[in-house]
Amino acid sequence: MDFNLPAGIAVLERTPLALRALLDGLPSAWTDATEGPATWSPYDIVGHLIHGERTDWIPRARIILAQGPDRRFTPFDMAAHFRESQGKSLAALLDEFAALRADGLAELAGWHLTDAQLALEGEHPEFGPVTLRQLLATWVVHDLGHVAQVSRVMAKQHREAVGPWRAYLPVLDR
Amino acid sequence: MDFNLPAGIAVLERTPLALRALLDGLPSAWTDATEGPATWSPYDIVGHLIHGERTDWIPRARIILAQGPDRRFTPFDMAAHFRESQGKSLAALLDEFAALRADGLAELAGWHLTDAQLALEGEHPEFGPVTLRQLLATWVVHDLGHVAQVSRVMAKQHREAVGPWRAYLPVLDR
Repeated sequence: MDFNLPAGIAVLERTPLALRALLDGLPSAWTDATEGPATWSPYDIVGHLIHGERTDWIPRARIILAQGPDRRFTPFDMAAHFRESQGKSLAALLDEFAALRADGLAELAGWHLTDAQLALEGEHPEFGPVTLRQLLATWVVHDLGHVAQVSRVMAKQHREAVGPWRAYLPVLDR
Repeated sequence: MDFNLPAGIAVLERTPLALRALLDGLPSAWTDATEGPATWSPYDIVGHLIHGERTDWIPRARIILAQGPDRRFTPFDMAAHFRESQGKSLAALLDEFAALRADGLAELAGWHLTDAQLALEGEHPEFGPVTLRQLLATWVVHDLGHVAQVSRVMAKQHREAVGPWRAYLPVLDR
């Protein structure tokens, strides 16, 4: 499936709702659970998504669209959310994510992007040249990957509790 | 994490909302997409969850609680949803799933299950003896596994569109 802006936006606008539906009001035994040392909980993942809204997707799209002399993206900080989420409830993070996502999608819509603009390039600090179209497709996949991760992390808390059914539940051993 | 009825119900009651938030109104390019031949689309998965509500979780729990002479579960039909979903829109399936899940959880709540009842056994056609507690934990994990699958199936539609970012997106190669 080629990247298509309306279809991509349809996913991006649903992610805050989906995470709220999955997580809001759940016992912390679910939302603070991880897959083991140095892995993230659902709470951590929402914080990471917030940091992406602030520093990754729309800011990188702006760099590409500006086509200035330096089109190199700032490296993404994979630990910033541990600091930034401190003292915040999951409900507050879900609200913050929804508000930032709405702002980002409003900015994106305001650009009325053309195919020519979607083909413009920026410079990824590791990969080198990447297009705006690839960045936006990645935004969509990144959302979906983290929704899948939230579900997987929660599922794994019952790896033992399911008894012999574990053999039928591949999510428990991914 | 041991299985705990209120925490399990908290997940089970959220799944219809989460799937609606993720899927309702999306272009069919997303909801009819699969991971390849003989794999399921998000549309197929919702149909499969409906069939589970009708024939798997609560019906098997009833067999266990009755403790009759024959406690063997009817094997689950992994293809029934292809027939049963025919002609139905995804929106109709999401409604049907939500209604069946609400009925099932109302029946479960009405049982006021004790720890002694959660330890009662039925007979799985393949695994042999399984407890009601294991069955209910499996219901929860089964939901979460399929939410993760829905997100993964959608993500994979952009496996190529993300360009070099594929290396950072493990969901694309699971």
